[in-house]
Amino acid sequence: MGEPHRICVIGGGAAGISAGSMAKRTNPDATVVVCTEFEDVAYSPCGIPYVLGREIPDFERLFLAGPENYAEAGIDLRTQTAVTEVDVANRTMTANGDVVPWDRLVVCTGWNYTLPDVPGNDLEGLVFVKNIRRGIELNETLDDVKKAVVLEAGPLGVEMLTALAHRGIETHLVDENAWLLAQIADQDIAEPVQTSLEELGCQLHFGVGLRGFVGENGRLRAVDTTQGQIEADICVISTHKEPETTLARAMGLKIGSTGALVVDERMRTSMEDVYAAGDVVEVPQNLTGIAVQGLTGSHAMQQGRVAGANAAGGDRRYDPVNLPWGMVGGQVQIGGASLGENLATSLGIPYVVGSANGISRARYFPGVQQVRVKLLAEPGTGRLIGGQFVGGEGIKERADFLAFALKRGATLEDLAWMENVYSPPIGALYEPLSVAAQNGMAQL
Amino acid sequence: MGEPHRICVIGGGAAGISAGSMAKRTNPDATVVVCTEFEDVAYSPCGIPYVLGREIPDFERLFLAGPENYAEAGIDLRTQTAVTEVDVANRTMTANGDVVPWDRLVVCTGWNYTLPDVPGNDLEGLVFVKNIRRGIELNETLDDVKKAVVLEAGPLGVEMLTALAHRGIETHLVDENAWLLAQIADQDIAEPVQTSLEELGCQLHFGVGLRGFVGENGRLRAVDTTQGQIEADICVISTHKEPETTLARAMGLKIGSTGALVVDERMRTSMEDVYAAGDVVEVPQNLTGIAVQGLTGSHAMQQGRVAGANAAGGDRRYDPVNLPWGMVGGQVQIGGASLGENLATSLGIPYVVGSANGISRARYFPGVQQVRVKLLAEPGTGRLIGGQFVGGEGIKERADFLAFALKRGATLEDLAWMENVYSPPIGALYEPLSVAAQNGMAQL
Repeated sequence: MGEPHRICVIGGGAAGISAGSMAKRTNPDATVVVCTEFEDVAYSPCGIPYVLGREIPDFERLFLAGPENYAEAGIDLRTQTAVTEVDVANRTMTANGDVVPWDRLVVCTGWNYTLPDVPGNDLEGLVFVKNIRRGIELNETLDDVKKAVVLEAGPLGVEMLTALAHRGIETHLVDENAWLLAQIADQDIAEPVQTSLEELGCQLHFGVGLRGFVGENGRLRAVDTTQGQIEADICVISTHKEPETTLARAMGLKIGSTGALVVDERMRTSMEDVYAAGDVVEVPQNLTGIAVQGLTGSHAMQQGRVAGANAAGGDRRYDPVNLPWGMVGGQVQIGGASLGENLATSLGIPYVVGSANGISRARYFPGVQQVRVKLLAEPGTGRLIGGQFVGGEGIKERADFLAFALKRGATLEDLAWMENVYSPPIGALYEPLSVAAQNGMAQL
Repeated sequence: MGEPHRICVIGGGAAGISAGSMAKRTNPDATVVVCTEFEDVAYSPCGIPYVLGREIPDFERLFLAGPENYAEAGIDLRTQTAVTEVDVANRTMTANGDVVPWDRLVVCTGWNYTLPDVPGNDLEGLVFVKNIRRGIELNETLDDVKKAVVLEAGPLGVEMLTALAHRGIETHLVDENAWLLAQIADQDIAEPVQTSLEELGCQLHFGVGLRGFVGENGRLRAVDTTQGQIEADICVISTHKEPETTLARAMGLKIGSTGALVVDERMRTSMEDVYAAGDVVEVPQNLTGIAVQGLTGSHAMQQGRVAGANAAGGDRRYDPVNLPWGMVGGQVQIGGASLGENLATSLGIPYVVGSANGISRARYFPGVQQVRVKLLAEPGTGRLIGGQFVGGEGIKERADFLAFALKRGATLEDLAWMENVYSPPIGALYEPLSVAAQNGMAQL
């Protein structure tokens, strides 16, 4: 049949939009339809907490491109268009009642926060920070909010703690785990972020379970926990990101161990000519092969590019991931790549640790910041298996570096003897990554 | 004879001090003597321009450790001790008249600025920013300085332009080259730094040769150039860093193409049991094998560690260099690793270019800075051969990353598909390195 000429994409987030764009670029003759149930595309959902926290003055800035840009690029972008059914046998989908044919389909249906299965979970005042229109509505109500609870300190939870505290709202965290970002970060690395949030006035309740939401006239009044009630006008539900697989399940696509769609390295699902990308899929972690999902917008975008290119007749691969991550909590930057101690231990993976309390500039230069580095490596070989950082600057760039080093199979010795820029205003004589690696070599 | 027990190091800079320290650590039973003709050790000469420019309040901060720390570590550190002769046959050296025996010698005699061979080069007012005591003396005179010339815009020259301008001194650059940092940076990359220096009030004279120094009563009054005289109370001589090989030549050590000492990968000179490290040696650039010298304090330190360890009976290698570099000129960060276009062209090395004008944070986040990236790669294979950056933040870390990628033989494709942290306050959705690599792939 030659090149696929009708490519449909379900979803208008980072994965869907880049899949559609890349499909059109790969095969300009193709008809590319992108459907999203929402009003908007090509904005930065990751920016919402910062508008709420008044670090960014308005929501308009979060928009990258209007729908007209996609029309100009020849993409049939349909907003407020829910895809309710996919007919696999006839290769069509039903979008706002229209039947749209496809040769290749790309499923980018994204994710939802897990709604806690407790009493009162339908009360007004439970908020989900995800969609920009809901964010704008929330922002308008925040001036009247005196007290807030954030449920679970994943990345979004930490950003919302910071934002609400900036906004002068009495903010509580309720989290069953023993420390902040416990799914990602080790306790020693998370600790400076916790301190910074507490300095902003956040009250962090760890090891505390959610029992329910207590309302009055249909509105939230308090969050009920295993340690009593916490009064709250709103509760930000920043729970686990659950893949949105309703449509995919109805189609019969294979679901993996994480509850997300299984795809191969070309982002193909279990069904011929059906691709998937973004938060609805799971992909293998590089060192362990373990499936992971719910990654970053950057991952969704790259996966979308691979899926879109391949759906349009290209041949690209998406490599197993090394998962650089990073963020700001309170005033502190935190990040890393792949395995930390907590995760390695729970997976039964042996490791040695090399740590260092380094600095970001010459120790005497104004603005110098601590950069704490912890590297994990395989005993014996010294091959890196991950690392985490916390500090004042340069965390994102070091996480990117570490992810690349992990991909290339680098060892502690490679980092111990790495070359580094030394210039007092921007870099110390001893690069913190290198010092941590040297310390790790002593443990081998 | 077993382990070498008497190790002498000539030189107390980054190379000498780390050679001595590493020798003692490798063989704690050894007698380690480190001689320096100067009064001080273990301070940061790289910090001097920033004290002169009043970005750092005092010189005391530049000291890392006093001489007593070395005594405690069991190192016989001798300051103000000039080594005037080395007797190769008898394996001794003469230090302040004392004859000191050695089993292994490490030559770390460093470098000097090239004194221009023009009339008036002995006038008072010609200053060399290198030694901290001379820096302290210079600092005391700067309040009376109205006009200054900086001769040549290498890294130190650019730092001194910035410092003198910060200090409110009318500052001129005299440089024969066509642009700033011409030995290292391409013109397009250097351009924003030039603009920033001009905004600080510096007057940059490119393509202008030095004819002489004009004095009055033995003091500098003006710098005579091919385009006329420039009045000046001082002239900062920031010319080429020339290896200090007087002693090494007298010993008969082999000198390489750059005028520096030839060493092997174990930092051994041409003479048995004689090692060398730091600015007095040349080492091969990784991709070309071409000898380079006059690198950074970080390189000197690492070379010193290798030389010191091996001199004490260890077995370490120093790898060919990929040369990450970075600095601040005016308000702008600039850096890179290995070959830029200018250098590749003059070496006759073919290349394709991938460029991008990226950003350091989400485009809507306060403090976001431009990060311009230019990557060079081998035509056909896409293997990276170097890159340069200019921008507002994260330049040092990207230069370190690129040097590592170069060492691992990475390609444009590897960077195009790299994983990166995306978090609005610290990293953009599209990592500038990755975008530049994608653009480069389109050129392959």
